[in-house]
Amino acid sequence: MKKQKKAAKENKNYHDLHALSRETAVWQGIQSLLDWDQETYMPSGAASIRGEQMKELAGLLHKRRTDKKFASSLQKLIDIKTGKILQKGLSEPQKSALREWKRDYLIETSLPSKFVEEFAKTTSEAMHVWDAAKKKNDFSLFYPFLDKIVGMCRKKADLIGYKEHPYDALLNLYEPSLTKKGVEKLFHPLKAKTLSLLKKIRSKPQVKDDFLHIPVSHEKQMSFGKKLAYLIGYSSENGRIDIAPHPFSSSSHPSDSRITTRILPKNFMSNIRSVLHECGHAFYEIGLPQEHFGSPLGEAISLGMHESQSRFWETRIGLSKPFWAYLLPFLKKDFGKNLENVSLDTFWKGINKVEPTLIRVEADEVTYAMHVILRFELECALMEGTLKTKEIPEAWNEKMVELLGVMPKKDSEGCLQDVHWSLGAFGYFPTYSLGNMYASHIFEAFEKDFPHWEKTVESGDFQLIKKWLGEKIHCHGRTYSAKSLLEKIAGKPFSAEAFTNYLSKKYQNIYS
Amino acid sequence: MKKQKKAAKENKNYHDLHALSRETAVWQGIQSLLDWDQETYMPSGAASIRGEQMKELAGLLHKRRTDKKFASSLQKLIDIKTGKILQKGLSEPQKSALREWKRDYLIETSLPSKFVEEFAKTTSEAMHVWDAAKKKNDFSLFYPFLDKIVGMCRKKADLIGYKEHPYDALLNLYEPSLTKKGVEKLFHPLKAKTLSLLKKIRSKPQVKDDFLHIPVSHEKQMSFGKKLAYLIGYSSENGRIDIAPHPFSSSSHPSDSRITTRILPKNFMSNIRSVLHECGHAFYEIGLPQEHFGSPLGEAISLGMHESQSRFWETRIGLSKPFWAYLLPFLKKDFGKNLENVSLDTFWKGINKVEPTLIRVEADEVTYAMHVILRFELECALMEGTLKTKEIPEAWNEKMVELLGVMPKKDSEGCLQDVHWSLGAFGYFPTYSLGNMYASHIFEAFEKDFPHWEKTVESGDFQLIKKWLGEKIHCHGRTYSAKSLLEKIAGKPFSAEAFTNYLSKKYQNIYS
Repeated sequence: MKKQKKAAKENKNYHDLHALSRETAVWQGIQSLLDWDQETYMPSGAASIRGEQMKELAGLLHKRRTDKKFASSLQKLIDIKTGKILQKGLSEPQKSALREWKRDYLIETSLPSKFVEEFAKTTSEAMHVWDAAKKKNDFSLFYPFLDKIVGMCRKKADLIGYKEHPYDALLNLYEPSLTKKGVEKLFHPLKAKTLSLLKKIRSKPQVKDDFLHIPVSHEKQMSFGKKLAYLIGYSSENGRIDIAPHPFSSSSHPSDSRITTRILPKNFMSNIRSVLHECGHAFYEIGLPQEHFGSPLGEAISLGMHESQSRFWETRIGLSKPFWAYLLPFLKKDFGKNLENVSLDTFWKGINKVEPTLIRVEADEVTYAMHVILRFELECALMEGTLKTKEIPEAWNEKMVELLGVMPKKDSEGCLQDVHWSLGAFGYFPTYSLGNMYASHIFEAFEKDFPHWEKTVESGDFQLIKKWLGEKIHCHGRTYSAKSLLEKIAGKPFSAEAFTNYLSKKYQNIYS
Repeated sequence: MKKQKKAAKENKNYHDLHALSRETAVWQGIQSLLDWDQETYMPSGAASIRGEQMKELAGLLHKRRTDKKFASSLQKLIDIKTGKILQKGLSEPQKSALREWKRDYLIETSLPSKFVEEFAKTTSEAMHVWDAAKKKNDFSLFYPFLDKIVGMCRKKADLIGYKEHPYDALLNLYEPSLTKKGVEKLFHPLKAKTLSLLKKIRSKPQVKDDFLHIPVSHEKQMSFGKKLAYLIGYSSENGRIDIAPHPFSSSSHPSDSRITTRILPKNFMSNIRSVLHECGHAFYEIGLPQEHFGSPLGEAISLGMHESQSRFWETRIGLSKPFWAYLLPFLKKDFGKNLENVSLDTFWKGINKVEPTLIRVEADEVTYAMHVILRFELECALMEGTLKTKEIPEAWNEKMVELLGVMPKKDSEGCLQDVHWSLGAFGYFPTYSLGNMYASHIFEAFEKDFPHWEKTVESGDFQLIKKWLGEKIHCHGRTYSAKSLLEKIAGKPFSAEAFTNYLSKKYQNIYS
């Protein structure tokens, strides 16, 4: 009897903390919904008061995450300073959760409320200014906001603290423990290998892809996108698909995980890739264990891991031959005559065409990394102060030529192309390439578990992929770090080799 | 100098209160957005956690409206118990604002937080249950929720307090100072006059309206609705138009006032009337003075006054002959051949056809009141306890036969037709008929100011209507009570006669 009582008490402390944290997650879901609305349906005139709403919400969330009630509830279970687990009888996942709670708490308490609120208001308004500046191709419109945000991000880095480089503090927000040095260690060889691969590819005859640029109506594309999403396991019960100029996924909670796509009248693959990509993100959120909603065990590990899920679907599945062996007949049926004579092989090569372009979100698998490296290098310099905000357009264009040999004609297809900086998300871009590398590492394990996956996919059965990713990754929440989960999945430590090997092999095949 | 300082201090107290209240309004805008989302785009699986979100928001709003900081800020300016204005040097509108703030504060403090949160959670979830029950035509599904809500509304009435009848406490929430007796005083003669008018109409040959039921595609209807909204002065800068099974308008703040409409494939007037109706609501919200956002001077007077604005546009303008003299050619152009031979007179008579039907939102101007009276009588009995929740379907059907001579074949077109009860909005329905009466009272003043309004409308100029309503009503916020504003506008006290006279005259004309 005594033992049972003690266990109940132990559970009580943990459950009290979880209940408190769950309420915060409910509030965070409200914030996500406002974010979603802002990028989909909000009338433009509402931007200013939406900024105030975001400020209030950010203030409340910050307060909840740092207040005494939460701190004392956490401190009962783990020593916030030393990280020593104080509560006995907890499971290993529960101990992991406590360490993650502590990590979040320390970051959150390093930022004063006023700073958090001001950051939220500024970025909410800046997003709309950026949008207008991009449309008008006028960097000077966005400049004062961006300069303020760069300053705030440098301050944020100082407030959070770092050992070596201010950028480390920001990277760590999106990918725990990632540092500038760590990124460089991955990006330097990646850059070299990409340049070498690109050189080889460019010496070969280019593949055909004109059939990808036939006109397809908005309605037909949207309908195909929806069918595709449902086919791979997305459900309108817990999600929805809307239009956004910059596709994103937004999860308010595990039973409301929405995605967006974009429809380009003469580029149907843009929609298809967006749907697959955003479904990959949504599957991660929907796959998190409901009973842990509001605790780290009900949260995604990192942005890199999140991106691995989206890129897994978008590139490893969606750009694979077996996927199109199944899907191409349906595409032909829906999108009409212009595709009739395109063979599977031609189609597959076409969608994998490698060509340096200006826009990151339209980049192929090979050149994609260069876009990320460009942003990474500029962000580091901005955070160091060796690059001034006003110098961005020129620096951008120079690097673009250096890395990809193409030159933007205007800032809207150069430094104004991405929304991230308006949102203050410095440190975010590297996780995109990390996601690609994680995806390839994970894919090796997937192939080992399912050596015949190609046949299954060819037959139109996608459930096994979703199930496998769910069991290997989604269901664990933040029980493991990215590093240890990747090792656990593949039985070997993560390295970038899986990714570069995949690229070499695949593109050797395509460009013979 | 001294005097100036004092004035500044006086202003400071008022402005401090306004600033505090403005923050609350920013939060309320978040609540409105979640409401809007719930009725338009939210995936059904999200209902449960949305309920929690609504609970949290309701709790926070209630806390902000009742907390000591707010109370002491208010008490500096007005004695909360006696209503005596304590601050010198305030303008008359500022004094009105203080009385309204006090009124709201007293209502809000009468309800315990737990009750408010439970009410929000229950009704948020009940809305989805009602929706399912309506679709399945199964009252028993909705019954346990409705019964709980009826109980909670009775408790709410007790908590708020009343002199004569529990229903008075609820009416007062939507229409300040309105009582059951007051409603009866208006509804008894209205019922008699309606019955007599209906009898006369039914003795005459019915007008034709088959041309209103030609099939028109969703896209064409939506496009026409949007053009119509923009034509009368709605703007996508501060609003948007979406689809909802039960059209509503939702204002997050004066620069984000959204409307919804519904598209019935064989009843294009449903969409057109919805758009006009909801635009009327939105104009009120957008027309409220921005500088007073967050104070009673930036809020609508009452639901009755709100409905007067929507019905002014929907019925007094949208069902008038001059309106269609301008619009019919455009309708014919857009909706095609089937309308080609319909004359203006035939069209006008058709859209004003009087016929007892089962559904309130589809009712004509004459029978509409009967639908409201039915609900009013049932609600009173439910609040008294003389009617049990489980007896609703039978009581509904009996009254339907008594008042309109028609009998629902199923509950989905009977007691399950309206969303209001699932939202706990007992006391709301009477404001619909009040709105019709207010609209006619206001229209008399409008006609006096613009004796040639018909010519202006015939020419497609709708700006004068919007401007006039803005100057007479919207810009005042809650400076005046409904009663005193109506008297101020028309130069005579409000009475229901303007409405009944309008009906008699108009329908005598139509049914000769």
